[in-house]
Amino acid sequence: MKKILVAGANGQIGKHLVTFIQKSDNMEAKAMIRSKEQASFFEELGAETVVADLEESVDSIAKAAEDIDAVVFTAGSGGHTGKDKTVMVDLDGAVKTIEATKSAGVKRFVMISSFDTTREAILEANASFAPYVAAKHYADEWLKRADLDYTIIHPGLLTNDEGTGQVNLAPKVERDEIPREDIARVILASLENDKTIGKEFQVVGGTKSIKEAVESI
Amino acid sequence: MKKILVAGANGQIGKHLVTFIQKSDNMEAKAMIRSKEQASFFEELGAETVVADLEESVDSIAKAAEDIDAVVFTAGSGGHTGKDKTVMVDLDGAVKTIEATKSAGVKRFVMISSFDTTREAILEANASFAPYVAAKHYADEWLKRADLDYTIIHPGLLTNDEGTGQVNLAPKVERDEIPREDIARVILASLENDKTIGKEFQVVGGTKSIKEAVESI
Repeated sequence: MKKILVAGANGQIGKHLVTFIQKSDNMEAKAMIRSKEQASFFEELGAETVVADLEESVDSIAKAAEDIDAVVFTAGSGGHTGKDKTVMVDLDGAVKTIEATKSAGVKRFVMISSFDTTREAILEANASFAPYVAAKHYADEWLKRADLDYTIIHPGLLTNDEGTGQVNLAPKVERDEIPREDIARVILASLENDKTIGKEFQVVGGTKSIKEAVESI
Repeated sequence: MKKILVAGANGQIGKHLVTFIQKSDNMEAKAMIRSKEQASFFEELGAETVVADLEESVDSIAKAAEDIDAVVFTAGSGGHTGKDKTVMVDLDGAVKTIEATKSAGVKRFVMISSFDTTREAILEANASFAPYVAAKHYADEWLKRADLDYTIIHPGLLTNDEGTGQVNLAPKVERDEIPREDIARVILASLENDKTIGKEFQVVGGTKSIKEAVESI
């Protein structure tokens, strides 16, 4: 059994992901949560939980990653938390999780990024969105230079629609919607397919099965 | 004559710095400003000006650095500009200036940082200051990995007092005040002394002459 640490487990993608991992045959989840009050959802799925805060030290996150085979970072400040959290969670929280992963001797890291985090995207974003794009840009850059077995997933516009299991997935795709449930499935498929190591791709709703789409990357 | 590009020339440290550079025997300043309306102060000093915005592309900054021997980054969002600008100027503006410096083939880069930009300082900062410390942390980290001849200056609490020319300067010093005018002198002394290449140091008001303090680093 491969054990997957999910940073941001209590988010919407995180909850789908832990659910799928717990249903899989060869993986189990360790849900990283900010407080014990968030534990019951994951305990009902039979998943392990660990309390660690992305705004605390690298060491406290590294401790959570001690018995782990792979780390998924799907935490996000969300639009509503204010610009402070953009730096502290989307950038600094991500980098601390990357450093904690290295420090725990874990190699595999899957990052849930934003749809387009290129330098051009920062320039083109409007003034209120640009700091978020920049924070995600630097988190992705840090990961690419971290000597980890990374995969960076760039989802389209996230919805709470039920997943279809069908996507359009490639280094560059046209911007479109995708259900959070399908992003969780893409993460799972990426963890199961080592072809995704060292790769990054955009993903939106489409017509290809997720397994096939991930295999063809 | 060595020509120094000053990014953030219209700031308080920047204006002192351009003044000192223009008075020196072996350097001349090129003041990087956001708009032509800021030019007159520098033209009166006989300094060249170039209009370039840190929120624009790397290329536009690289063009400003074309005929340059060294770049000084002393731009800052300032406390009053809001958290958006922390990411866009203190982090992204700094990184774009670093990339522009490389792209223009310039090697020497002097960064005006914050007093303490270590990971510990981010953790210890209060919630409203932490994003600024984090932004400066990542800008400094980016510079250290950029293969440039860098110097990172970490000033204490900046004041508008007249400079004394006397400082306490070392990798670690006790936090204290320092006039902006003396920081400008420390930048000039660093540009004149290659012993500062690959070094970073804190600096506050003290009892040693700036030239001597920089020489002993």
